[in-house]
Amino acid sequence: MQLSNVLTIVGVGLIGGSIGLAAKRRGLVRTVRGLGRRQSSLDRARALGAIDEAYLDPQAALKDAGLVVVCTPVDQIAGQIVRFASFCKPGAILTDAGSTKATIVAEVEAGLAAHTQERNPVPQVHFVGSHPLAGSEKRGPEFADAELFQDRWTVLTPTPRTDAEALEKTKAFWTALGSRVKLMTPQDHDRALALTSHVPHLVAAALAASLPAELRELAATGFRDTTRIAAGDSALWTAIFTHNQDAVLSALAAVEARLQAFRQALAARDWNALGQLLIQAKEVRDALGS
Amino acid sequence: MQLSNVLTIVGVGLIGGSIGLAAKRRGLVRTVRGLGRRQSSLDRARALGAIDEAYLDPQAALKDAGLVVVCTPVDQIAGQIVRFASFCKPGAILTDAGSTKATIVAEVEAGLAAHTQERNPVPQVHFVGSHPLAGSEKRGPEFADAELFQDRWTVLTPTPRTDAEALEKTKAFWTALGSRVKLMTPQDHDRALALTSHVPHLVAAALAASLPAELRELAATGFRDTTRIAAGDSALWTAIFTHNQDAVLSALAAVEARLQAFRQALAARDWNALGQLLIQAKEVRDALGS
Repeated sequence: MQLSNVLTIVGVGLIGGSIGLAAKRRGLVRTVRGLGRRQSSLDRARALGAIDEAYLDPQAALKDAGLVVVCTPVDQIAGQIVRFASFCKPGAILTDAGSTKATIVAEVEAGLAAHTQERNPVPQVHFVGSHPLAGSEKRGPEFADAELFQDRWTVLTPTPRTDAEALEKTKAFWTALGSRVKLMTPQDHDRALALTSHVPHLVAAALAASLPAELRELAATGFRDTTRIAAGDSALWTAIFTHNQDAVLSALAAVEARLQAFRQALAARDWNALGQLLIQAKEVRDALGS
Repeated sequence: MQLSNVLTIVGVGLIGGSIGLAAKRRGLVRTVRGLGRRQSSLDRARALGAIDEAYLDPQAALKDAGLVVVCTPVDQIAGQIVRFASFCKPGAILTDAGSTKATIVAEVEAGLAAHTQERNPVPQVHFVGSHPLAGSEKRGPEFADAELFQDRWTVLTPTPRTDAEALEKTKAFWTALGSRVKLMTPQDHDRALALTSHVPHLVAAALAASLPAELRELAATGFRDTTRIAAGDSALWTAIFTHNQDAVLSALAAVEARLQAFRQALAARDWNALGQLLIQAKEVRDALGS
């Protein structure tokens, strides 16, 4: 299935590189272009086969692209999409891979609407917000994986302004990469991710930061698993928190309340209550599988 | 190197089974005996090659054993060791694999001293507290692994009452299984493990329990890693908490204070402070390696 002649990936790190590898392996496009800010990253991505062509210049990278996937940090995505729209051909579909959606989608829709209202000579392009729930604490195209999206969920966040055909094509794209697709509102997405990803990051970071240097060698598999995501890039994560402050605060309060229940049971030596809390947690975790 | 003719493992689950496999693979003993409460577990352990002989009867299992390793839940270890001492030959070394040490060591030393004072006909045996920092949330001999202890730390917790030669032999045993050995007081061990293992378990459980059923499918790798240990057996973990209440409450307070710092930075939209907290956490986690 060929979805587009030209796919342009903006930001060829772990996610962008994986999209390139997956699209090429599955023959979804004729050409995969990478647009980046550093020639070195682009060269590595090309050497790894994640992209066919490397660009530092947006205008050249976006010319004639039918599909554009923006895989940059969440605080850069909306601005880039609004700016890049003018370099795209009419009918081009732009999507992203950002871990937050409400702020990005609102800024993109407002920016694209402003273009239109100002009667700038901007072609009619379509935006669909996406978030593939895949990745890791690692960065860079050398960690890219053609199977990264296989059997993982990608959340698309259409709004009343979203073009129905563009949504279908975006869905087909992620499905073709191996992903299962789910639609949510941008707000529901952000509330869900606060609990499934953003607060776990804070909790992992709080645990990691609490470990004194002299106890590091005693941190075994359990501690390593529990804190692994705290190795994620701090600037990327700070940007995520700026986008999702309210939902993260609510989700954090829920987790803190659970921790307090554990603390109270412990302090009261109420082993029955503690055991019940552990059983509830185990049931949830067991339901997730490995 | 043959450390003993007969090694008896009490409790042939993941840890006990791994000790048996490792001891047999390395030729450390002539015979590995398994002592358990259920014939089915013993049969599985024998079928997997983790033990040579299976026993339900302590007296038969312990006769002539030079080394006994008790791998049962922490709330059973001390009582078993004190009871089993009378079945052991003079000079036998008993050790354990419990995740807590202060309560176990105190109860064993008091129990063995009482035997002596009461002039019971109890042979002179030696106890050394051990805790191999290895394992997982899984249970049962089918998860045993001959390399489980390779390059992992085992903490030994001698006291002024510990026999120096028995300590050396216990050290040699864990070293021969591939482990690195570290000596700590039982109290220091428990304070350290509160932070590196027991509180991470509570935090993982609090996170897991906070996940509503409708969001389970959105829990990706990060959530799974962060909550993996919450799948551990709730009765085993409740017993651990009963043994280490004070240290766990202190360590929990430290982690809660860190979480509160994150919450305050978020609530104040102090992204600089939030970024600094994330950087500190990342530095610790990066230092641990994968």
